[in-house]
Amino acid sequence: MTVPTGPSSAPVLVVGTVAFDSIETPFGHAERILGGSATYVGLAARFLTAPVRLCAVVGRDFPDDYVGLLEERGLDLDGLVRDPDGDTFFWAGRYHYDLNQRDTLATHLNVLAGFEPEIPPSYRDSRVLCLGNLDPAVQLAVLDQVEGPDGAGPDLVVLDTMNFWIEQTPEGLREVLRRVDVLIINDAEARQLAGEPNLIRAARLIRAMGPETLVIKKGEHGALLFANETVFSAPAYPLEDLHDPTGAGDTFLGGFAGHLARLGRYDAEAMKQAVVVGSALASFVVEAFGPERLLDLTPGAVEERVMAFHRLSAIPEGLLVVSE
Amino acid sequence: MTVPTGPSSAPVLVVGTVAFDSIETPFGHAERILGGSATYVGLAARFLTAPVRLCAVVGRDFPDDYVGLLEERGLDLDGLVRDPDGDTFFWAGRYHYDLNQRDTLATHLNVLAGFEPEIPPSYRDSRVLCLGNLDPAVQLAVLDQVEGPDGAGPDLVVLDTMNFWIEQTPEGLREVLRRVDVLIINDAEARQLAGEPNLIRAARLIRAMGPETLVIKKGEHGALLFANETVFSAPAYPLEDLHDPTGAGDTFLGGFAGHLARLGRYDAEAMKQAVVVGSALASFVVEAFGPERLLDLTPGAVEERVMAFHRLSAIPEGLLVVSE
Repeated sequence: MTVPTGPSSAPVLVVGTVAFDSIETPFGHAERILGGSATYVGLAARFLTAPVRLCAVVGRDFPDDYVGLLEERGLDLDGLVRDPDGDTFFWAGRYHYDLNQRDTLATHLNVLAGFEPEIPPSYRDSRVLCLGNLDPAVQLAVLDQVEGPDGAGPDLVVLDTMNFWIEQTPEGLREVLRRVDVLIINDAEARQLAGEPNLIRAARLIRAMGPETLVIKKGEHGALLFANETVFSAPAYPLEDLHDPTGAGDTFLGGFAGHLARLGRYDAEAMKQAVVVGSALASFVVEAFGPERLLDLTPGAVEERVMAFHRLSAIPEGLLVVSE
Repeated sequence: MTVPTGPSSAPVLVVGTVAFDSIETPFGHAERILGGSATYVGLAARFLTAPVRLCAVVGRDFPDDYVGLLEERGLDLDGLVRDPDGDTFFWAGRYHYDLNQRDTLATHLNVLAGFEPEIPPSYRDSRVLCLGNLDPAVQLAVLDQVEGPDGAGPDLVVLDTMNFWIEQTPEGLREVLRRVDVLIINDAEARQLAGEPNLIRAARLIRAMGPETLVIKKGEHGALLFANETVFSAPAYPLEDLHDPTGAGDTFLGGFAGHLARLGRYDAEAMKQAVVVGSALASFVVEAFGPERLLDLTPGAVEERVMAFHRLSAIPEGLLVVSE
């Protein structure tokens, strides 16, 4: 396929997991399908920009078919390492009827346990760095290696994390937070990280920890962006049939970072658009199991979905309360 | 004060409760303050349109000061009946720390128990009818009495209800639903009424019960409008300090209906604006206890808040995913 790159297209580096996922939802199940944060981030970002560079580890059991599938979608896999001494990271989860809740059934770190990412020299000039959900210690090691275009580091660092790291490695996470530009988390994680139930207050507290920009994902309620003095509220695409929420957050991150890389602009207005692009891509991924929808999606379908977000949230002109 | 009426300004009739509320929140408490659905709906609607006609019952203990306070805000009180044989409806509630949850501490129906509303002849030509939260049997009795401008009934009927009536009087509620144009409920009530966790599906099921238009209020997550084939998502105003959510839903209804009455238009585009006006007014009322903020608000402040909603949700122009 032709990767629709834009005027700037800064190189994007994605560090995260490439994994096997086993997923149960009330609507079906899937065994050992392709998963992992880097997979979703990369598969989403490649709709917007190129090159999209992946850094992750897989085990001896990872099929060449899956590698080929990522390669065919135009992802740069120079940093995809195969560890011959272990198995690929495996996650199994079961979603409840309302899909907002899930139980983790198994987490086998396998080769991820000893993962010390080495960023290939060809990746080091990346301008946009996506740190997918990983141990903060690993995220820090990556931050130390990415030189950016002029040795002063990447232009933009976007971070994802989760409740596990908020609870288990708060110190490491705080250190990472001081070094990133954008944090993308869900509402429950934001409340937990800040220790504050009001999301607007929580946002202020989290931004004081380091990230100048914060995106709070709220699932069926859309997303909030806090950038400079700006708050932006993006709707969720109204879906009647959600089949599998796995990877929606990573897909959002990929679309968000990909749009910014494509523009080569990181201001609040660009960030608002990026939230919409991320939301649009995430709205596709939940329509099928695993990354299936991301594999066959056409750029035209993405464009159409982005336009639907415009229609969904545009307030008709001429709204005046006070009489002229 | 000058009531800022618009080009059309169809007469609005509000039927609901006028009550004493005792409210506890983590931020303070207030005893026997002015409350009730008709109070909030009327105090909100009068920013948009005139006349705003109230129909409700109070008891022998209701102070003239409170009556004067409603009168001074330009509300038509011909339909505010004083029942000398009983006390005014009283509600007491306690909000939890996160303010999304509350416990009802007391509900004394008092004069409301025997309330059989008689719509004054001067009210019967009302074009917009707001049915505040009340027993469906009472709502039906009102529907039978309002003739509208030409005897064919009001141009628009807007209904509020709550979980109590969904559970206790499902048959009566179903009958009311068949006769209203717009239903405004919160997300938990929508899920309960439809028996369906997915809000988009729930909306479809509820609209099949009668109301062509449905608004689902989601508190800190904004509101969804379903009208014709249109879905519209309005953001919530980002508030750090919510003091008391009491009356926010009724205030929304008043702003929504008041805007439509002012325009004299009931199409989907007008409804989208109405959702924003309702959201803006509701965002004020939660800033203080009871209806306090609604009493002293200036039209200019309302206008400014409406503009903030525009800024909050506007997607910057020129967002294209596919390269030109």
